[in-house]
Amino acid sequence: MIYLDYSATTPCAPQVLAAMAPYFRDRFGNPSSSHAFGREAKAAVEKARLQLAEFVGCGPGEIVFTSGATESNNLIFLSLLLDVKETRRKIAVSAIEHKSVLLPAKNLGTRGFDLTLLPVTSNGIVDINVARKLITEDTALVSVHTANNEIGTIQPVKELAEIAHRVGAKFHTDAAQALGKMPFDAQQLDCDLASFSSHKIYGPKGIGALYIRGGSRKWPWDYPLYGGGQESGIRPGTYNVPAIVGFGEACDIMSLNCSHFLRKLSSLTQAFEKLLSAQHSPFLIHCQESPRIGGLSSIYLNSPKAELILEHLSGVAISKASACNSSSLEKSHVIQAINSDYSLSDKTIRVSFGLETDDSNVADLFNDLMNSVQVIHK
Amino acid sequence: MIYLDYSATTPCAPQVLAAMAPYFRDRFGNPSSSHAFGREAKAAVEKARLQLAEFVGCGPGEIVFTSGATESNNLIFLSLLLDVKETRRKIAVSAIEHKSVLLPAKNLGTRGFDLTLLPVTSNGIVDINVARKLITEDTALVSVHTANNEIGTIQPVKELAEIAHRVGAKFHTDAAQALGKMPFDAQQLDCDLASFSSHKIYGPKGIGALYIRGGSRKWPWDYPLYGGGQESGIRPGTYNVPAIVGFGEACDIMSLNCSHFLRKLSSLTQAFEKLLSAQHSPFLIHCQESPRIGGLSSIYLNSPKAELILEHLSGVAISKASACNSSSLEKSHVIQAINSDYSLSDKTIRVSFGLETDDSNVADLFNDLMNSVQVIHK
Repeated sequence: MIYLDYSATTPCAPQVLAAMAPYFRDRFGNPSSSHAFGREAKAAVEKARLQLAEFVGCGPGEIVFTSGATESNNLIFLSLLLDVKETRRKIAVSAIEHKSVLLPAKNLGTRGFDLTLLPVTSNGIVDINVARKLITEDTALVSVHTANNEIGTIQPVKELAEIAHRVGAKFHTDAAQALGKMPFDAQQLDCDLASFSSHKIYGPKGIGALYIRGGSRKWPWDYPLYGGGQESGIRPGTYNVPAIVGFGEACDIMSLNCSHFLRKLSSLTQAFEKLLSAQHSPFLIHCQESPRIGGLSSIYLNSPKAELILEHLSGVAISKASACNSSSLEKSHVIQAINSDYSLSDKTIRVSFGLETDDSNVADLFNDLMNSVQVIHK
Repeated sequence: MIYLDYSATTPCAPQVLAAMAPYFRDRFGNPSSSHAFGREAKAAVEKARLQLAEFVGCGPGEIVFTSGATESNNLIFLSLLLDVKETRRKIAVSAIEHKSVLLPAKNLGTRGFDLTLLPVTSNGIVDINVARKLITEDTALVSVHTANNEIGTIQPVKELAEIAHRVGAKFHTDAAQALGKMPFDAQQLDCDLASFSSHKIYGPKGIGALYIRGGSRKWPWDYPLYGGGQESGIRPGTYNVPAIVGFGEACDIMSLNCSHFLRKLSSLTQAFEKLLSAQHSPFLIHCQESPRIGGLSSIYLNSPKAELILEHLSGVAISKASACNSSSLEKSHVIQAINSDYSLSDKTIRVSFGLETDDSNVADLFNDLMNSVQVIHK
């Protein structure tokens, strides 16, 4: 079985495993302890913070470790919800956000906030001109992901940040799917807040981060969580030292090999999409002409027997739309947003390549797809 | 340097490391994916859920995995805070809770809830008779930890649960410090909610759990977090598979060796406290006569030169009060609650033994303490 679902999660890189290994048992201290075991663990956390900061273009004091991007995203919305001093009552998020942004935003929409869904055009990109009209003086927060998790489209984050800032709103971007698949620089993109995930870039699961421009003292709203005061009180709880170390190492690997990795992902995707396009196949690629991250193809199967064709794929592990939606019966809100034909989301698969994918895997995938079509249609 | 701070954190057991190892890289799937990689990871999560459930005396459907006890505790308070249908406006927590309960409770106290701190007697145990008067018909939630993290006193959880239930309140216990150091059975204790931590029982950091009596459908208040719907929507975010597997394995080790471990911890503590008591030393043990978990001694240094004595300890890694307080300048609220002399908290150290502690470590600790006293007082 060939794994082609790297957008759902990635295996830890061998160097990540090696970096983490000592911190489970030998250097297992609690960074909050003042003795030698604690200080050693604390130093490891701070090294990883530097590695992440360098990778995403910020200072180490601007990074708060969380348990993942879902928590990072939720913290922002909870924080705004609980802030009694914030007088602005409007929030704006794109219609194709990951559910860990979309659903917290909808929750605020039922609790005294006015939620605006920023529409995307059929090319899967937020319509800047519409956004400019919808983001107004009473907007507290604009949140638009850097790249979409289902169709891979890259969003105009810098432009949206500028629009948000012009009216005095904070701008947040969920960069979970962008990191490692396109260049990302928090400062250059002019974000106030950004969310990151480790397990999408060959680091361990269960760890992520929040970028806060200017550091914890610039945290814009209330603290939702309380405890031992870790991470300047923004994210209390015993530091997950091995995972933090692994995340830092993953960032280092990404930083050092960035251009090579991006070229590889892009080349795999191009090769695959070229194979598909050359055939009179029923496969169409969503938003093929849009700027997209490398490694991800969202494929619409234009056949009445779509479901059967997908069931006949035998040698590849791929997703329907996204991992978070794959076990639910809901239709993808992303596919719906880019195309008014709701049935398309039933017939869409997501193929995502990674650093361990090679050219032969692409060929195998293509052959598997073609065989399945022939078996079903004969 | 001898590590005697097992209440702050523990090293992963070798069997825990072995159980986790395959899930970082080989079996790295996302349990939310419907393909074979996902199903394999999902099965591992469900096995661990069973292991934990068996260890804490509940059904697997009553367990929700979180990033740790701090998150478990916060989820409960946030959930109550956000519930607009809850008409009861009172909450009661013990005065000596861990800060991840105490501070969320205080936060609710500033947001429309009436917070009652249940007092403890000088023996470090919640005063049941006072609690009975303070917990009333308008109490929504009572939260009292199973055992204290600084002085190790075991609380009358079953009796407090009964008092809470008599007035229709929910009862929660933070069992982070109890697990592995005393018998714990959620059903027998009659709790509605309980919090657990993996890294206190030789499992990995960054993973914990919530027990919810009756399962997710009995979750009493609102959902604070939103995302991909994992853990019945109570705790969304990609499953931290290796950590969950490690947590499950740690529970198995604890279950299988429970009586042996408890005897060992109790015997180490008894030996150490006997040594201290036999001397005309300035060391006094907080709440020595109270029911306490094994392995933990909170020691008050009755000397004007206390700070100097502590600084001269050279061969042992121990805490002042607790890890979460060790780097802050605040005085311990626990020591203050059991004794009105506030200066005592400056002169208190916590020694905590673990499964890797042996008799020679106890002797070394005792000698280190005695040497330090002699050096300072000569």
